[in-house]
Formats: sequence, structure tokens, C-alpha cells
Amino acid sequence: MTETTDPDCLFCKIVAGEIPSQQIDENDDTFVFMDINPATRGHALVIPKRHTQDLTTIDPADLAACAQMAQQIAKRAKSQLHADGVNLLNCCGEVAWQTVFHFHIHVIPRYVDDSVRLPWIPAPGDADEIAAAAEALRG
Amino acid sequence: MTETTDPDCLFCKIVAGEIPSQQIDENDDTFVFMDINPATRGHALVIPKRHTQDLTTIDPADLAACAQMAQQIAKRAKSQLHADGVNLLNCCGEVAWQTVFHFHIHVIPRYVDDSVRLPWIPAPGDADEIAAAAEALRG
Repeated sequence: MTETTDPDCLFCKIVAGEIPSQQIDENDDTFVFMDINPATRGHALVIPKRHTQDLTTIDPADLAACAQMAQQIAKRAKSQLHADGVNLLNCCGEVAWQTVFHFHIHVIPRYVDDSVRLPWIPAPGDADEIAAAAEALRG
Repeated sequence: MTETTDPDCLFCKIVAGEIPSQQIDENDDTFVFMDINPATRGHALVIPKRHTQDLTTIDPADLAACAQMAQQIAKRAKSQLHADGVNLLNCCGEVAWQTVFHFHIHVIPRYVDDSVRLPWIPAPGDADEIAAAAEALRG
């Protein structure tokens, strides 16, 4: 795999140490640092070191490495920060709230009575519409 | 790795075909089906075939397989359903909105003007608090 860096990318500059961050961890493939606009105490971001725009472009091996690192951080959020739960969130595309176009997984520790809110109201969908979408997704 | 099934688990019953679902895809390690309470058109769930409670308990190889399958479904949401973006969400623990205790990744296609809302209001955090949480997470 080619090592790639985008010189204009905020997160590439963080990985390179050109912009300071509160780094948590790293390995050959991933880098972990604190979100400066945290949803909750301990909100961290896991990114691949190799620049890639989003979920549609990331190399599957880098995606696996990021997911596994996110799992480690989630476990630490529970053991070290006494979080009651954790959300992982990936935002792919501006409409999905992506603001930095270098793939990242949000690791959001959750606490009883925190202010994070469910992004949608669960309600039964129309069975025919679900079936039609399923057929399209079978690809 | 041991093949494990929980006879009382809703999702294990779906994998076994004992409870019907709108299945999208599967491979040796994962199974994909439609969420019956969809946030948006095409909302799907990716699960490991081997029963495991949540992000803290899933085997890292199964986690990688689920993430990579979620990537494939996200790409299809864009190409087949013309989604404008995608969110991946994992909920670990009741406080983080987990309701079925068999690990799953939500694949939520996003569309301009859909009704999904950001789960928190991004705002700068206190630098000292972020630094203290970072220190705890370094583990």
C-alpha cells in the first residue's frame, strides 16, 4: 500500500505533528487523538495514518485497523473514564455531518444523563418500502 | 474460533432463519438485514454470525469483518439508492441506545433534507478537561 499524505489536510498535519493534538495512541496504521469539540468527556477520533477521504475510499485493511483501535479506546473509556457505554460514529459525506475529509471514527464515551441525543426517532417502517430498499441493496 | 449462538437472542434467530428478515447479504462471518425501524430509506444492520454482546466483547477479527461489510453496504447505498452520504453507528450499552444485545453496526444512508439530527451540538471543550481525559485514555 502506498503511504499517502495530503499536505492540505488538517488530520495529516496532526499525524505529522505539524498541528498539536492531545494524542492518545497510535500504531503502524492508525492515530488517535482527542476531539476538540467533545460531545462527552473522553470523545476521541481514530484515523488512518494514510490519507483517504471517507468510508467509500478507505482501504479495507486500514478500515479494519481503525475499527480495532476504536474498540481498544472504547474499552479504555469504560475502564479508565468509567463510561457507562460508548457510541462509535462514522460520518461519510457533508450531508452525514463530515467536516474534515480524512476518514475518522468518533469514539464517544456515554454516561447516564449525558446530553447526547438519539439521531432519529425509532418507529416501524413501511414493509413494502423496506423490501424495495432491501432489493436495491442486494446489489 | 468457536461458533456460538445464543438461543434467546433475536439476531441469532434471524441469522438461523427462525425469525424472518429482509436479508441483504452475508459471508462466512457476517449477516446483513434491514432495520425494521429505519431512520432513513435503506437503513441496514451488519452483525457477526457468532453471538457476542457488544463492542467490548466482539472478537477483533469479527469486528473487522463487520466493518468491511458495512463499507460494502455503504457503497451500495450510494450507488443503488443514490444516498448523498452514510453514517455508521455502533451502540454499546443501554445508555448508548443499544436495545438488542448482539453486536451490530447501523448503516444509515443519508439524504439531503432527511430528518436525522446530529446527536450533539459541537462546541469547543475546556482544554484542561480534554487533557485530563486524554491522560486517562492513554491507559
